[in-house]
Amino acid sequence: MSENYSRPLDALNENRGKNVVIDLKNGARFTGKLRAFDIHINLVLDEAEESRNGEIIRKCGTIFLRGDTIVVICPSA
Amino acid sequence: MSENYSRPLDALNENRGKNVVIDLKNGARFTGKLRAFDIHINLVLDEAEESRNGEIIRKCGTIFLRGDTIVVICPSA
Amino acid sequence: MSENYSRPLDALNENRGKNVVIDLKNGARFTGKLRAFDIHINLVLDEAEESRNGEIIRKCGTIFLRGDTIVVICPSA
Amino acid sequence: MSENYSRPLDALNENRGKNVVIDLKNGARFTGKLRAFDIHINLVLDEAEESRNGEIIRKCGTIFLRGDTIVVICPSA
Amino acid sequence: MSENYSRPLDALNENRGKNVVIDLKNGARFTGKLRAFDIHINLVLDEAEESRNGEIIRKCGTIFLRGDTIVVICPSA
Amino acid sequence: MSENYSRPLDALNENRGKNVVIDLKNGARFTGKLRAFDIHINLVLDEAEESRNGEIIRKCGTIFLRGDTIVVICPSA
Amino acid sequence: MSENYSRPLDALNENRGKNVVIDLKNGARFTGKLRAFDIHINLVLDEAEESRNGEIIRKCGTIFLRGDTIVVICPSA
Repeated sequence: MSENYSRPLDALNENRGKNVVIDLKNGARFTGKLRAFDIHINLVLDEAEESRNGEIIRKCGTIFLRGDTIVVICPSA
Repeated sequence: MSENYSRPLDALNENRGKNVVIDLKNGARFTGKLRAFDIHINLVLDEAEESRNGEIIRKCGTIFLRGDTIVVICPSA
Repeated sequence: MSENYSRPLDALNENRGKNVVIDLKNGARFTGKLRAFDIHINLVLDEAEESRNGEIIRKCGTIFLRGDTIVVICPSA
Repeated sequence: MSENYSRPLDALNENRGKNVVIDLKNGARFTGKLRAFDIHINLVLDEAEESRNGEIIRKCGTIFLRGDTIVVICPSA
Repeated sequence: MSENYSRPLDALNENRGKNVVIDLKNGARFTGKLRAFDIHINLVLDEAEESRNGEIIRKCGTIFLRGDTIVVICPSA
Repeated sequence: MSENYSRPLDALNENRGKNVVIDLKNGARFTGKLRAFDIHINLVLDEAEESRNGEIIRKCGTIFLRGDTIVVICPSA
Repeated sequence: MSENYSRPLDALNENRGKNVVIDLKNGARFTGKLRAFDIHINLVLDEAEESRNGEIIRKCGTIFLRGDTIVVICPSA
């Protein structure tokens, strides 16, 4: 992410098209390429995978995550 | 889903009429054909089935899912 | 439900006067005839019955269900 | 309740002055005479009693129930 | 409370200056004199005491209770 | 707090600059000097300390508490 | 933080560019440099690390935390 922004959604926007790791309130983790998001933090990920405890349990393709289930969005290592 | 959209609901819209898998906050999973949705992510699915732990437990026909129970919407494999 | 509608509440509306099965977040299930609903998915059911684990535990008459407790609304089999 | 209404709050209104049973999200049950309610489903009950597992545990007089704790409102049998 | 009111907050208002018992979602109970409230049911109690399982565990003086933690407000016996 | 106010936030305002005890929904307790708050009951405390079961577990300096985690605000004994 | 401010977000703003410790409702703790926040307390942290029970479990780089998962924001010791 670049050095100059002042709003969280601007920062999130810089992750568009990049791989991210999403942790959910229910303990699930999704990785994928961030395609789209809105002010509710509803997200669309491409090439998404779900994992639990570090193990991939599902390849999902393009998914829609409801914003209110999301805890944290990290860039993929 | 197509390559060009910028908002999550646009992406969701491309799944209209297609089979999707919906995971809920209570651990239930519903599959069915996405018929309709709104900004709350309230959904209507046709030919819906409920499953738990990979086993179909109910065939439901056309159902209404309240948006705030939804975690993730995946295209059906 | 008919083939032509685009909004979830339109679909729900087609269930008015018909028997439906309502699953709640607390694990309860109510069946009854759908009399009324609003945008919060607050519902009124006639001839309602509550069941747990497939067993009827209460005959309730006409009930009011608060929308935010609702997970899914299915047509009665 | 009468046969002709289309909105849930209209139905609820017909229970004014009548005995109702209220189930809460925390598992408590209150019975009493419905005195007042608003769009949040905040309720006032007269001659209210709290019960747990079918046993009356408290006589409360006139109480105020916060709407977001309510699951279902049934007419008293 | 008087016989003539139609809105829940009007009923609540009649408890101003009187002793009330407040049950919270986390199982705590506070008693005190109702000093003030607003539409969120945020409350101020004077001479408040916290109890658990019928035992007073804290004398608190004048407290502020956040409305969304409240289940029920009863007049003090 | 003074005798004359009618709104909960006015009462809260009288605690500005004074020591308060804050109980959170997750069971944590924070004590500190109330510096600022807003209508969501987001709070800033100076010289804050976190305790669990009566034991101080952390000295935090000036902290920001998100309003929706707060249960009750008491004046410090 | 300086002595003169009256709103919680002003206080939070003084932590911009400084190291903070964030506790979440799910028990996770994130530390990092506060880059940005908004009125929902959505946050962006740089050089973020996640810890559980005092042990660092992940170095995350720049992360986005959804505001409604946050309990408390402390300056880093």
